[in-house]
Amino acid sequence: MNEKELAAVIDAVIREMADASDMTLDMALALAEAVRRKASEIGVKAVVAVSNRGGNPVLVQCMDDSYIASYDIALNKAYTSVALKMPTCQLSGLAGPGSSLYGIQFTNQGRIVIFGGGEPLCNREGKIIGAIGVSGGSESEDTALAAYGKEIFEKG
Amino acid sequence: MNEKELAAVIDAVIREMADASDMTLDMALALAEAVRRKASEIGVKAVVAVSNRGGNPVLVQCMDDSYIASYDIALNKAYTSVALKMPTCQLSGLAGPGSSLYGIQFTNQGRIVIFGGGEPLCNREGKIIGAIGVSGGSESEDTALAAYGKEIFEKG
Amino acid sequence: MNEKELAAVIDAVIREMADASDMTLDMALALAEAVRRKASEIGVKAVVAVSNRGGNPVLVQCMDDSYIASYDIALNKAYTSVALKMPTCQLSGLAGPGSSLYGIQFTNQGRIVIFGGGEPLCNREGKIIGAIGVSGGSESEDTALAAYGKEIFEKG
Amino acid sequence: MNEKELAAVIDAVIREMADASDMTLDMALALAEAVRRKASEIGVKAVVAVSNRGGNPVLVQCMDDSYIASYDIALNKAYTSVALKMPTCQLSGLAGPGSSLYGIQFTNQGRIVIFGGGEPLCNREGKIIGAIGVSGGSESEDTALAAYGKEIFEKG
Repeated sequence: MNEKELAAVIDAVIREMADASDMTLDMALALAEAVRRKASEIGVKAVVAVSNRGGNPVLVQCMDDSYIASYDIALNKAYTSVALKMPTCQLSGLAGPGSSLYGIQFTNQGRIVIFGGGEPLCNREGKIIGAIGVSGGSESEDTALAAYGKEIFEKG
Repeated sequence: MNEKELAAVIDAVIREMADASDMTLDMALALAEAVRRKASEIGVKAVVAVSNRGGNPVLVQCMDDSYIASYDIALNKAYTSVALKMPTCQLSGLAGPGSSLYGIQFTNQGRIVIFGGGEPLCNREGKIIGAIGVSGGSESEDTALAAYGKEIFEKG
Repeated sequence: MNEKELAAVIDAVIREMADASDMTLDMALALAEAVRRKASEIGVKAVVAVSNRGGNPVLVQCMDDSYIASYDIALNKAYTSVALKMPTCQLSGLAGPGSSLYGIQFTNQGRIVIFGGGEPLCNREGKIIGAIGVSGGSESEDTALAAYGKEIFEKG
Repeated sequence: MNEKELAAVIDAVIREMADASDMTLDMALALAEAVRRKASEIGVKAVVAVSNRGGNPVLVQCMDDSYIASYDIALNKAYTSVALKMPTCQLSGLAGPGSSLYGIQFTNQGRIVIFGGGEPLCNREGKIIGAIGVSGGSESEDTALAAYGKEIFEKG
């Protein structure tokens, strides 16, 4: 199978996403593959995690030579995005000293991530059916990669 | 890409495994895909985890409708297989009341699994370069699926 | 420094042990080196941990290619030996289902090890001033290596 | 063996480090001994931890009368340096309130340390094959001791 054929397979799966009611492994694999390609393009060795609407992981994959620490971080970014129904980059402002949610990073056994790289994923009706978490680049790279994942997931 | 083409892609990756010095994401994806197919054949909804030689996860993927609990179990079976250099089914006998390692299941923050479904993966030189952990079926199904993964990994 | 000279250095340190009131790093290093040599002789790749009389670790050293899981196990064997003032092999019998201490393996956040390989270390007055924990071989090998460590520690 | 002879032994081992592909116990012992001497010189009672490239500990040694808390801190500094591929002193700036990675100290079960004293250790090819973590002095002393360890490790 050449690159073009593989891209077609991924696209076919992604088209189903917008109508789904929960994350499937096939959707997660296609999404992670697309984000992995983008990460390679921009030179980031990323860990990509995808969770379902229950906040439970469906897929975690670690690019070769990615940070060991990124496994937990990517997983927790996906969890946080479902669990708080917002991108993790929104939490940066809310969770700092003096802000309204200061301390939320300590409430859930270390599973709340308050910097960018996590995005909830919605179906056509706007219902959150999962989330993506990316870790491995700078905070802005992770944020961009997660946003890219959200974009292709929801464009279907 | 049809089934036959996909199988060829997987085979090509698997052929590289026996010469590797550490697990790669491509190897882990091919291995997990092969085990997933076998699980489907026998009607098991499995979580498949693959770790590298340092015991760190490379890939975890959860088949649709698999047990939520299987995520931790599959991950820990892979960890255990690297960390103790043996299939987890071997630990069943060693860790029971009255046996020599009774209690080993409590020593490592709950990460040691003492029933079948985890297998270390060796390269051609016999060196452990990772492990597979499978959870989702009965203990004998998980054990068989992990052994199947080991077989295709090492036949390369 | 040749082998003979090194052995003399180790012996000199070990001679001090019997009069000590608490474990020192020099004593722990000499003890671990002696146990490591014995482990090499019998073909075991061991992790050796030495704790002080407060149950806190003084030294943990992992022989090349030892089990990843053995780090926690050796450390916890040393902890258990000080914390319960007995060799861990004595706990095997006491902690099984139906025995008087069944369940003790669950009481201390997973730090109690109930199989052999841990030994309290006493000074000349019989006071426990530390412990050794060994993990990496079979239960009988670990038990023998820890007992060997105890013997050279206390013979000083 | 006098001081000069011991120094020669340490130097011989250190010369091998730059060509290694993973940390060995002999390298870790020589490195820790060198850092311990430097710590003694500047009056710091340090805990020195050395991990391998998988982030797993190879050696932890606690100088007499060092802080009990330093054991976890040194171990986690070594872990962090491998797991995030950077000196822990670099994280201080990135992880403060208002900075891009604020909150990273809460994401990995308390294993990420964001102040100085941890350094990744690279071989001649620039590949990280382990890390050193030092705890026991002021933040600047720990940072200097870890940097000293890195320097002698990589000068080989």
